[in-house]
Amino acid sequence: MSEPRGEWKLIEWIRSRTRLDPTAFPIGPGDDMALVGLGGESQCLLTIDALLEGTHFDLSKATPKQVGYKAMAVSLSDAAAMAAKPVCALAWAGLPENRDMAFAKDLSAGMADAAEKFACPIVGGDITSWNQPLVTVGTALVARPAGIIPIRRSGAKAGDLLFVTGELGGSVLGRHLAFTPRVTEARQLAALVTIHAMIDLSDGLSTDLGHIARESGVAAEIMADAIPVSEDAKRLAKEDGRTPLDHALNDGEDFELLLAVEPVDAQDLLKQNPLKSARLTHIGRVVEGGGVSLVAPDGSRAALEPGGYEHFK
Amino acid sequence: MSEPRGEWKLIEWIRSRTRLDPTAFPIGPGDDMALVGLGGESQCLLTIDALLEGTHFDLSKATPKQVGYKAMAVSLSDAAAMAAKPVCALAWAGLPENRDMAFAKDLSAGMADAAEKFACPIVGGDITSWNQPLVTVGTALVARPAGIIPIRRSGAKAGDLLFVTGELGGSVLGRHLAFTPRVTEARQLAALVTIHAMIDLSDGLSTDLGHIARESGVAAEIMADAIPVSEDAKRLAKEDGRTPLDHALNDGEDFELLLAVEPVDAQDLLKQNPLKSARLTHIGRVVEGGGVSLVAPDGSRAALEPGGYEHFK
Repeated sequence: MSEPRGEWKLIEWIRSRTRLDPTAFPIGPGDDMALVGLGGESQCLLTIDALLEGTHFDLSKATPKQVGYKAMAVSLSDAAAMAAKPVCALAWAGLPENRDMAFAKDLSAGMADAAEKFACPIVGGDITSWNQPLVTVGTALVARPAGIIPIRRSGAKAGDLLFVTGELGGSVLGRHLAFTPRVTEARQLAALVTIHAMIDLSDGLSTDLGHIARESGVAAEIMADAIPVSEDAKRLAKEDGRTPLDHALNDGEDFELLLAVEPVDAQDLLKQNPLKSARLTHIGRVVEGGGVSLVAPDGSRAALEPGGYEHFK
Repeated sequence: MSEPRGEWKLIEWIRSRTRLDPTAFPIGPGDDMALVGLGGESQCLLTIDALLEGTHFDLSKATPKQVGYKAMAVSLSDAAAMAAKPVCALAWAGLPENRDMAFAKDLSAGMADAAEKFACPIVGGDITSWNQPLVTVGTALVARPAGIIPIRRSGAKAGDLLFVTGELGGSVLGRHLAFTPRVTEARQLAALVTIHAMIDLSDGLSTDLGHIARESGVAAEIMADAIPVSEDAKRLAKEDGRTPLDHALNDGEDFELLLAVEPVDAQDLLKQNPLKSARLTHIGRVVEGGGVSLVAPDGSRAALEPGGYEHFK
């Protein structure tokens, strides 16, 4: 019988075999970006992402320009998760042989649009093609700390309050192709308050909060009636019989920020939201222990299992 | 009628639309790596590559470990082409759902093997999967100048002599999975002599020399009887009726270095090969004009068209 599969298991296995000199590589696998020393005081942050047709987009519902935009935006969202300043990106595409030049140019133009919006130019890349009716788009993004210490997943402490930006769930209805990576909001928040841990919501709140809890060695509890449920989540719920809350907790690809804020600072955020461009919602808190709990309006609590998508499972 | 396709045309189009501040981004699209400023004196070099099943490897002939090794090695070869020092890499895999955990681990182990060999650790990455019987592996590599100015494709001057490392052609028989990226050799050569231009032979000598000639605004001529033809090229020639020289000029995936050396320094290289680990062969020279010519043993000369593989054509 072969070994059970799973993206998280595989990443754990790779991490267990990775030996990095912590001076040269202060942040390695398992965070939103890696932090790398380049000699002297110089450091940069790095991430790589790729989109697969059929998994991350559907070309009957998305234009090549939207796919290109999303390909860049998911990497920019990783930079947001670390409160880092994007510097530049590399792009790679595996083009299906049955697509034409206009398709390839639109894809490229979509990437350039996202790059321009965040002053993060595409400085290089590669183009390949194959005999498959599928397109794959990869990006690698370089960012730098620029005055803000990169915020990890692993720093949450008991007592911290948990916040999310925006509204969650149902992004498959279109938002997953056109979201705004929260680069600006992350840096605004990090300049104002002490953020102990942060992640961007790519796998779904239940899964991504689990990442923060596990990496930080703490437990998290969130209040069901505090979760900002999107209109898209409500629309989807009407169609498929799942609840809007279920969509908000588990759909993924929201690309909003989830952050654990130092308690005193959190009180300031509760009084006034400093963000003009996004709703900021207090959804719960960090406590001693492990795992994630969902607290119902009547005060009852239940374990919240990761409900997001896991690759290679 | 739709526009003619082609990897080179597409890259030209992208380059024509890319506006980079040359202070922040001294080397942009169109070279083996991009050079990026990170504030102050700090710079890094970046490349991204990916391998596609069916195009860059065949899983009936290559183990997943070999594929992983090649995925890292092609990026390391880009660093060699710039005479840069590899620092770290990111890895990404799109795993087919019909593969098991052992397959994924072998792939990862192959990447780690190549990374370890060049003290270039894999510091992060991502894993995805899809319902396709195909695997895609991407890497992004970071390198830094470390005492040697990055060597571009565009600096060749009339009078330079052209050299290649190793032997060319027929790498499809196995060498394309197990080659040694010429990182050490490139830095040895660059420390000894003035190299005006360099590239790694991924697309084939005829195509890659064309890249150097075009980017440098010069012509190149190579001597047919000087090209170091590999035993593999000879074996393939027996099977397919093409000449061994044709294979050496056009097969690609040799991942050897092609360099244009300042004339006085080149005389030193002609007298003694400073490389212990690879043959170094004088194959021709750079002259005024444009294009690449092949000079036959009888002195007759013919234009050498790019015969390498062009994607998306």
